[in-house]
Amino acid sequence: MTPPLLDRYRDAIVEGLRRSLDGEGPLSGILRYHVGLADRDGRPATVLGKLLRPALVLFTAEELGAAPGAAMPAAVGLELVHGFSLIHDDVQDEDDVRRGRPTVWRIWGVPEAINAGDRMQALAIQTALAVGPEAAGLLLEAAAKMIDGQSMDLSFEDRFVDPDDALRMIDRKTGALFVCAFELGAVCAGAEVSVRESLRALGRSVGRAFQLQDDILGIWGDGNVTGKPVGSDIRRKKKSYPIVLGAAAASGEERGRLEEIYGKPDLDAGDVSWVVGLLDRLEVRSKVLSEVESYVDDATSVAQSLPIRDEAKAELVGLMEFLVRRQS
Amino acid sequence: MTPPLLDRYRDAIVEGLRRSLDGEGPLSGILRYHVGLADRDGRPATVLGKLLRPALVLFTAEELGAAPGAAMPAAVGLELVHGFSLIHDDVQDEDDVRRGRPTVWRIWGVPEAINAGDRMQALAIQTALAVGPEAAGLLLEAAAKMIDGQSMDLSFEDRFVDPDDALRMIDRKTGALFVCAFELGAVCAGAEVSVRESLRALGRSVGRAFQLQDDILGIWGDGNVTGKPVGSDIRRKKKSYPIVLGAAAASGEERGRLEEIYGKPDLDAGDVSWVVGLLDRLEVRSKVLSEVESYVDDATSVAQSLPIRDEAKAELVGLMEFLVRRQS
Repeated sequence: MTPPLLDRYRDAIVEGLRRSLDGEGPLSGILRYHVGLADRDGRPATVLGKLLRPALVLFTAEELGAAPGAAMPAAVGLELVHGFSLIHDDVQDEDDVRRGRPTVWRIWGVPEAINAGDRMQALAIQTALAVGPEAAGLLLEAAAKMIDGQSMDLSFEDRFVDPDDALRMIDRKTGALFVCAFELGAVCAGAEVSVRESLRALGRSVGRAFQLQDDILGIWGDGNVTGKPVGSDIRRKKKSYPIVLGAAAASGEERGRLEEIYGKPDLDAGDVSWVVGLLDRLEVRSKVLSEVESYVDDATSVAQSLPIRDEAKAELVGLMEFLVRRQS
Repeated sequence: MTPPLLDRYRDAIVEGLRRSLDGEGPLSGILRYHVGLADRDGRPATVLGKLLRPALVLFTAEELGAAPGAAMPAAVGLELVHGFSLIHDDVQDEDDVRRGRPTVWRIWGVPEAINAGDRMQALAIQTALAVGPEAAGLLLEAAAKMIDGQSMDLSFEDRFVDPDDALRMIDRKTGALFVCAFELGAVCAGAEVSVRESLRALGRSVGRAFQLQDDILGIWGDGNVTGKPVGSDIRRKKKSYPIVLGAAAASGEERGRLEEIYGKPDLDAGDVSWVVGLLDRLEVRSKVLSEVESYVDDATSVAQSLPIRDEAKAELVGLMEFLVRRQS
């Protein structure tokens, strides 16, 4: 069941996205396709994602006392930054499918997909600027961190980093937009500095919990739900957090075999199951799960300290439970 | 000889770029390399371009009465938007060399080049935001138009458009940043609406003159100066303005042959010289040159009407002469 916090804002966010993407430029059809508001021929569609980040902006803003709707441009801007990163991500990872549909580069080619992502980044900041320069500045800072994280992630292809470096990458690639979601809400409500500090910590914990859960699904997820085969992140030789943890805990011999497998141009089923077997022997899954729990605990205790209604605190906790229980 | 208008601001702009690119993130070395402030190993270098756009921002701001240096963040932001577009352009066109050095994607690969361009776009707007939200908004609007122009240009690969469509593309892909340069200067100086209107017209004319001259050099330029072989735009099957003009003026038979040549996967020397011969028979070069002259005339008469010193008007006219006489 979708948590009320996501349900409540969904229609308004979809409408906000529609307005922001209403343009008639040469790329607007592609942008509408990518967020899921149109099919490839431009006909209306609604194949949107969870819209988690913009919901967190609106929730935070309203619970802290902003006028209803005041934070919408910031919320939409943040979702568009996320959206632009996915367009370019799909090019970089050569991913063919997103939310059950061909990716932008698969339909329009790499050069036009680069343009579409560029255009969506510009539109994102233009949209957020309607709230004011502080909101636009926060969003730019988050976008910059996210791109840095993407670059760090790419550099990990050459080596097995240690778990702390992997978390630093996650704080940028995934965490920055969650921190930004809460902080944009705070700015729209004119919240105090101490509240903003708490919200930054909350965003960091939510980002880590969210990403580690994603990484768990990328290896042990149920293919019928995630749409990806079991072990898919391994087959794609992604150095996601569980792999990094496994490499750090492996014996010299195991580590050698792991590096050898990750050095192959293509992995076969035997390679994938050997790596999954290694992670299982090292109890990596339960270690990652317990880290996820600790981030959820951190987030919960921050949530309890916020100057918001008790019902709102419960909703926030409910959302975190949903995010770490999700199967896709 | 470099016109005084470019010389005067150069050192300050280089210093402004250096400050803006001073960061320590994972992509900062690549960004410094791309603008020409570092070599590929991170050692200091100075291989910068003409820095035309930021010079126009500073010139316009100061001549209209802004405090010295007040427009620097806007000027640097604009140059970084131009820079980001070149990083992605080189990926899209598979260009190997820029200003005599390997392009970013050739050294760091396509995925990291996409990150570097994305990061530079974010940094550009962050930098301009220091001037204020209006400057950031203008720069975003210009970036959006430029990206739309890039997309239009890409779509021209499928067909021969008519010359008016080609000019509409040029107004976006090239003109938008020139319009923005003058308008940012005006905003920094708090200029009146009527002056801003004039400066927009000036930017459009300068953009067209600049691009058509570029297109002439891409076909008839001296390879020893441009660093590209004669006919290089034809060999790359670019539908630059002279080609579009040629296609529009060609007989049915010539047009058929032209389309046939542009339909080949690779062009040989005979194809290139046939196309150059066609353009020469149709007197395309002199037609384009006379269009360039008319845009320079337009720009000159706008320059005369501006509320700036006579010496400044003369400098502006001198700069335009330089731009349309340049051989690279």
